[in-house]
Amino acid sequence: MTVDLSRRLVAEALGTAMLVATVVGSGIMADRLTDDVALSLLGNTLPTGAILVVLITILGPISGAHFNPAVTLVFALRRDINREAALAYVAVQILSGITGTLVAHLMFDLPLIELSSTVRTGPGQWLAEVVASFGLIFTILAGRRFRSDAIPRLVGLYITAAYWFTASTSFANPAVAIARAFSNTFAGIRPVDVPAFIAAELAGALFALALAGWLLADPKTIPTMEAAE
Amino acid sequence: MTVDLSRRLVAEALGTAMLVATVVGSGIMADRLTDDVALSLLGNTLPTGAILVVLITILGPISGAHFNPAVTLVFALRRDINREAALAYVAVQILSGITGTLVAHLMFDLPLIELSSTVRTGPGQWLAEVVASFGLIFTILAGRRFRSDAIPRLVGLYITAAYWFTASTSFANPAVAIARAFSNTFAGIRPVDVPAFIAAELAGALFALALAGWLLADPKTIPTMEAAE
Amino acid sequence: MTVDLSRRLVAEALGTAMLVATVVGSGIMADRLTDDVALSLLGNTLPTGAILVVLITILGPISGAHFNPAVTLVFALRRDINREAALAYVAVQILSGITGTLVAHLMFDLPLIELSSTVRTGPGQWLAEVVASFGLIFTILAGRRFRSDAIPRLVGLYITAAYWFTASTSFANPAVAIARAFSNTFAGIRPVDVPAFIAAELAGALFALALAGWLLADPKTIPTMEAAE
Amino acid sequence: MTVDLSRRLVAEALGTAMLVATVVGSGIMADRLTDDVALSLLGNTLPTGAILVVLITILGPISGAHFNPAVTLVFALRRDINREAALAYVAVQILSGITGTLVAHLMFDLPLIELSSTVRTGPGQWLAEVVASFGLIFTILAGRRFRSDAIPRLVGLYITAAYWFTASTSFANPAVAIARAFSNTFAGIRPVDVPAFIAAELAGALFALALAGWLLADPKTIPTMEAAE
Repeated sequence: MTVDLSRRLVAEALGTAMLVATVVGSGIMADRLTDDVALSLLGNTLPTGAILVVLITILGPISGAHFNPAVTLVFALRRDINREAALAYVAVQILSGITGTLVAHLMFDLPLIELSSTVRTGPGQWLAEVVASFGLIFTILAGRRFRSDAIPRLVGLYITAAYWFTASTSFANPAVAIARAFSNTFAGIRPVDVPAFIAAELAGALFALALAGWLLADPKTIPTMEAAE
Repeated sequence: MTVDLSRRLVAEALGTAMLVATVVGSGIMADRLTDDVALSLLGNTLPTGAILVVLITILGPISGAHFNPAVTLVFALRRDINREAALAYVAVQILSGITGTLVAHLMFDLPLIELSSTVRTGPGQWLAEVVASFGLIFTILAGRRFRSDAIPRLVGLYITAAYWFTASTSFANPAVAIARAFSNTFAGIRPVDVPAFIAAELAGALFALALAGWLLADPKTIPTMEAAE
Repeated sequence: MTVDLSRRLVAEALGTAMLVATVVGSGIMADRLTDDVALSLLGNTLPTGAILVVLITILGPISGAHFNPAVTLVFALRRDINREAALAYVAVQILSGITGTLVAHLMFDLPLIELSSTVRTGPGQWLAEVVASFGLIFTILAGRRFRSDAIPRLVGLYITAAYWFTASTSFANPAVAIARAFSNTFAGIRPVDVPAFIAAELAGALFALALAGWLLADPKTIPTMEAAE
Repeated sequence: MTVDLSRRLVAEALGTAMLVATVVGSGIMADRLTDDVALSLLGNTLPTGAILVVLITILGPISGAHFNPAVTLVFALRRDINREAALAYVAVQILSGITGTLVAHLMFDLPLIELSSTVRTGPGQWLAEVVASFGLIFTILAGRRFRSDAIPRLVGLYITAAYWFTASTSFANPAVAIARAFSNTFAGIRPVDVPAFIAAELAGALFALALAGWLLADPKTIPTMEAAE
């Protein structure tokens, strides 16, 4: 009664590539059209939030719509996905993320691969990635617990917010972080800064998993909102 | 048990005209009010995404809410619409699209018809239209497969994203491309550049149809998200 | 089995006043904060679209959430509301609309009443109001026909689009047009220009009623989208 | 059949801290990226509206998702929450709100605590807070009465509008007002101006409670929208 793994991996590949093409492509578009950096970030935020709702809705039924090694790690630890599939998911996410960067560059007539020179480092940035990733994973876990039909828009809205309230503009995704290292454009990140981002993202994800394990526990005793008193 | 063809064609005409009036009209409005091109694109994006949700919701039950020859082509190939109706749909879409341009021009006190001088050509633009159209058609097909009630907002959100992440600002619709050739305003496209856009759009649509045929196949074996493992 | 008229009128008053306070207040706020007129219109659009979704959702079950004499007229012609109630609705809408302007002025430390000097006239503007009002009323009627639970967001999204694609920024509401004549701010309109706007709005509403009478007719023969072929 | 109080308080703490971190953090981000104040307010509005939808959806089933002493007061007066729990809620909201400010400052490399020097006072501002808080509480009460599943998005959309149509940018929350006094950034408020804001917010909340008691009364006699005549 499961979707075969090849279809699931193609869904992960398609979703991750489209997500990265959106993040990188909209950053290039916005940056070319204006000198106002807040407006560039807005032109980067709205497409990213919108495409997440679309991709999770249409590919979730096939692969679960992870598109993110931190998500896959958490689901593997919860035994919602087995180890072999998880490893395949992560490999596909990283490769297809980079492919998304290539597609964006091709559309915008840029060199296929560039190494970013955008510095993103320091304790504030790392804390921001911990917070961003914690919030993303907790949103997904709580969404699955209470309103699984709402997960696509919860994730889209969460990332819309997190682009602005975290100092790092919320990468929150190791595969996307790697893919963005290969674009010397608005969304880029210096390759040397990626490992610390990934570590922070995984730390935030594990913290969310731990908190959710306690806060969302024991379905029977948690009433609906109407019965909260 | 079907809506008669005359009502369906009127629904297609109304929807396509309103869509083009929104694309062209909001482009004129935004362009008049600001010198910042990113802000103009934003003032073009939000109305387009919003009106798509409205039009598909209210006219979908009558005509299916294609408003787009690439959509009609795909549904004809899937035998969801017969050949005669499909040809009538496409003719109506093209004519009412041009009518939408006329209405926008009348409202904004512009000459009824102008030929656009905006150059939109080259491999990057063509690839962008392939990608834009592929994503639109795949979104519609996957939406019909898993969440047909969500199609209006999926299409609205997809186009919201695609205006920014594709280098062409995502025409993704041959009837709209033709209609935009008759407006020398923000949303315009040089008539000579239209045929390549249409070819790219149809190519993207056919690629989406092919991928969907495999990736979305065999409903019985594809579980819900909760059962994905 | 009906809500008593006094509650219905209070709901109309509250909703219309909040709507106008939002239209006028957000226009003042945006205009004070920026010199870019497109950004002002955006700061006027988003709050208006958002508050419409809220007000129609929470007050619709009490009064039907008209907030608009053109809507009440159409429902009176359809015999969805009786003549006496309709007249009371319209009177309340006009008075509470003006009250909304007063509240906005009080919050922003402006004189309670000002006559606007903003010229909004000419055939383009009038056509724009016909189109804006036609689209609004048709959206409501088709929404009631196919997806009445979606009406709040359909109206909010429609107005979000119409602020940009119509040359008049889509007043589409005689009570709001009157209320905006008393504010010499971003959202204002010269009192002398109001009658033509109201005539255009009513014309658009009647055209929508006529088209809906034919296009949306005979529920039995109109299948769902899935069965459209 | 109730969630234990410790989980409820942690949910209130998490939600209020995330809300304030979003309000303060996005204000800092936006203010750094642009000189246009309307754009800064937009960069503050969208994340706040988006995160409210997320937080209320995922934490509502645990604690009711108050995040706001004015909300807790109203529910205590309605006896939806008992006095002891209400006091604990308010204490947690205030403390975790301030924690949210600290987290934002840490992410953006600012001093942990600053006292704001932003003047927000005068009758216009106070009226704005009465209106903002009245609208928020009435939206919640009417939402619970007619569409409790829609409350998350109703609150998110209401605040999106209220940031612009009220002269105070709609604090509407005593805990958030206190937390914002400790940040000398875009979202700040002079500590000396906080008490009047809180008084205005509570007044607006009580007015909404009183109006709702009459306008939303007697469920049996209030029909659905379709039966409104």
